[in-house]
Amino acid sequence: MPVLVMKFGGTSVANLDRIRRAAKRVGVEVAKGYDVIVIVSAMSGETNKLVGLVDDTSPLYDAREYDAIVSSGENVTAGLMALTLQEMDVPARSWQGWQVPLLTTSAHSQARIEEIPTDNLNAKFGEGMRVAVVAGFQGLSPEGRITTLGRGGSDTTAVAFAAAFGAERCDIYTDVDGVYTTDPRISPKARKLDKISFEEMLELASLGAKVLQTRSVELAMRYKVKLRVLSSFEEQSDEAGTLVCDEEEIMESNVVAGVAYSRDEAKMTLLSVADRPGIASIIFGCLSDAGVNVDMIVQNISEDGRTDMTCSLPTDQVARAKQALEQLKTDGGLNYAELVTDDGVAKVSVVGIGMRSQSGVAAKMFKVLSDEGVNIKVITTSEIKISVLIDRKYMELAVQALHDAFELEKV
Amino acid sequence: MPVLVMKFGGTSVANLDRIRRAAKRVGVEVAKGYDVIVIVSAMSGETNKLVGLVDDTSPLYDAREYDAIVSSGENVTAGLMALTLQEMDVPARSWQGWQVPLLTTSAHSQARIEEIPTDNLNAKFGEGMRVAVVAGFQGLSPEGRITTLGRGGSDTTAVAFAAAFGAERCDIYTDVDGVYTTDPRISPKARKLDKISFEEMLELASLGAKVLQTRSVELAMRYKVKLRVLSSFEEQSDEAGTLVCDEEEIMESNVVAGVAYSRDEAKMTLLSVADRPGIASIIFGCLSDAGVNVDMIVQNISEDGRTDMTCSLPTDQVARAKQALEQLKTDGGLNYAELVTDDGVAKVSVVGIGMRSQSGVAAKMFKVLSDEGVNIKVITTSEIKISVLIDRKYMELAVQALHDAFELEKV
Repeated sequence: MPVLVMKFGGTSVANLDRIRRAAKRVGVEVAKGYDVIVIVSAMSGETNKLVGLVDDTSPLYDAREYDAIVSSGENVTAGLMALTLQEMDVPARSWQGWQVPLLTTSAHSQARIEEIPTDNLNAKFGEGMRVAVVAGFQGLSPEGRITTLGRGGSDTTAVAFAAAFGAERCDIYTDVDGVYTTDPRISPKARKLDKISFEEMLELASLGAKVLQTRSVELAMRYKVKLRVLSSFEEQSDEAGTLVCDEEEIMESNVVAGVAYSRDEAKMTLLSVADRPGIASIIFGCLSDAGVNVDMIVQNISEDGRTDMTCSLPTDQVARAKQALEQLKTDGGLNYAELVTDDGVAKVSVVGIGMRSQSGVAAKMFKVLSDEGVNIKVITTSEIKISVLIDRKYMELAVQALHDAFELEKV
Repeated sequence: MPVLVMKFGGTSVANLDRIRRAAKRVGVEVAKGYDVIVIVSAMSGETNKLVGLVDDTSPLYDAREYDAIVSSGENVTAGLMALTLQEMDVPARSWQGWQVPLLTTSAHSQARIEEIPTDNLNAKFGEGMRVAVVAGFQGLSPEGRITTLGRGGSDTTAVAFAAAFGAERCDIYTDVDGVYTTDPRISPKARKLDKISFEEMLELASLGAKVLQTRSVELAMRYKVKLRVLSSFEEQSDEAGTLVCDEEEIMESNVVAGVAYSRDEAKMTLLSVADRPGIASIIFGCLSDAGVNVDMIVQNISEDGRTDMTCSLPTDQVARAKQALEQLKTDGGLNYAELVTDDGVAKVSVVGIGMRSQSGVAAKMFKVLSDEGVNIKVITTSEIKISVLIDRKYMELAVQALHDAFELEKV
């Protein structure tokens, strides 16, 4: 029988009523003839409670014990979901990561999936089990210890199962009903996309769209897993939500698929640093060692062998970044005239695979912002994305103006 | 290095402070040179919470899923205890049942332990691990599924580990500081026993002393595991608590070790049943099928081929018992004149291995009760125990009088 993977996040299994609602959705797919693999998260709040216990016990915890503790939330949901399905006369069984087994690396708390042998589950499907409820986010290390997969681990688990079992589709049930052209809270004209390409979804995910984790999209792209994002709080048809797929499957699409934003950005500029090979490596190596997540990087034109180096970073990491660079200057590792920071900026991006074939998107974007009187501070581009740093106070205006200009409300 | 098993119940690990206190006790034993196996229960309240979720999901739950869900409470405590020990620089690691593995039968929710291979833990002890923190109450079935051991499962886990690893002793930390000659709430003269024999402990446990579960005492007796019961809420010396051991290790002891009681008993008499072979089997088979836990059974002298059959049972099972026997009479399966019940009785017992060699204990017991004006309704005896059923209102009086008469306050 064809296999379907369905993943339910924490809010979708937050209590027994919601678990029942999710189980009904599973029942619908079983009735259509699918063997279903259900991936569940912990009931919302449970993982945070367990993490709190760990933090209170041991601030510098042993990641092996952390994994053994926090993975228990998913185990509870998996058992409850299996029982709920059984109550509906759907033959179901729960599986913890080690029982499948979902084999991972030994990198506790951020393990990567190595292999998912299909024998155990397939044997049970052969005996009449129709639903395998698998605890997400967890696996088994070569040493026989429980691992967890880090942020977005349950999405990644779902995609990995879909790949291993050649599933027809991987449905991610969440608290939004799909991927939007932009955040509906910012632009009321935001439109749900029926389809989006893996590449676009990847950019949107890394730009802060909370719908899917970057890692799960990467995995889906690599293994050509059809991903669907849809709401667990609405009645669903077969065409509900947003399908994330190969761009070949998207017949026609707008040049721009969506407008993304990131609110809490800061800009930092090092004035007059030596323009010589290795200087960027020194600066960003220093910031990386200090645990600063640098995003955009631009370097100005060189003059007299000196240049300015600008980057963007989260506002709450500015202090740490300044301290690290000033220390480096004191130690003689780096020479610069001045360190200027501006923590009142935001990032706005347009994303679309159409940009590859159609020129003028950047020019149009810059004109729209200029017409609205928005000054651009930094620009970076990729093949399918243009991001600008602007004053934070213009962020919503910019998102709305770009959404209008690229006519994203229209199909 | 010699091995010690230490078990901490739910109230002893109810929060992080108590886990820390328990970990300190473990640290003391490690400092003495022991390799320690710590068995933990779920933090008190957790298992009930999980059982509640299961009951609300599926009243007639699948015991396999029940086990997978409720066992997660112990996993959390095991991880937290391991982290707490690590914080104290004690090399520790948590083990879930399937990791040891603790192999059990497939009888989910009431599995019996089949084997505990020692290789995995011993290998880690060999590498310098000093404490293995094992989640109690759980094991692994031949089918690779999680099992739980039923009531008192963590005590049983502890004793089984002590047997498998040839531990010097198995210390059960609980919320009382040992085994008493009787309930201190009833007789202020109750005295903590330094030692008690397995046989006496077994009788006391099955008579309602809540300190240890019958099953764990049976296992300790069979494998000659020295069991010690002591409080996790007090500073402890090596001689603290009560040692449950072979009677040979108890040099001198009172004839009677303790007085036990059970408050909520009922008496049921079938008047004038046929006195023929098989009649008891019919009556008690019927009660057993109805899920009634019959305790004492007495049969009167026969007259004209008819006899009276009396038994004791918990008060809350009287209605069920009556219904079953009346139905049996209606169906023609049993003939009797009348069914008389009295749910206002209590059971009082004296227990002591000294009874084997010393006669007159029963006579003394009956005289004490007679002197106090207490009428005895039913008597049963075993080699080391005499139990009587009396009116409930005399229960405390009887316990106190017997405690005084056998001078249990004296060593």
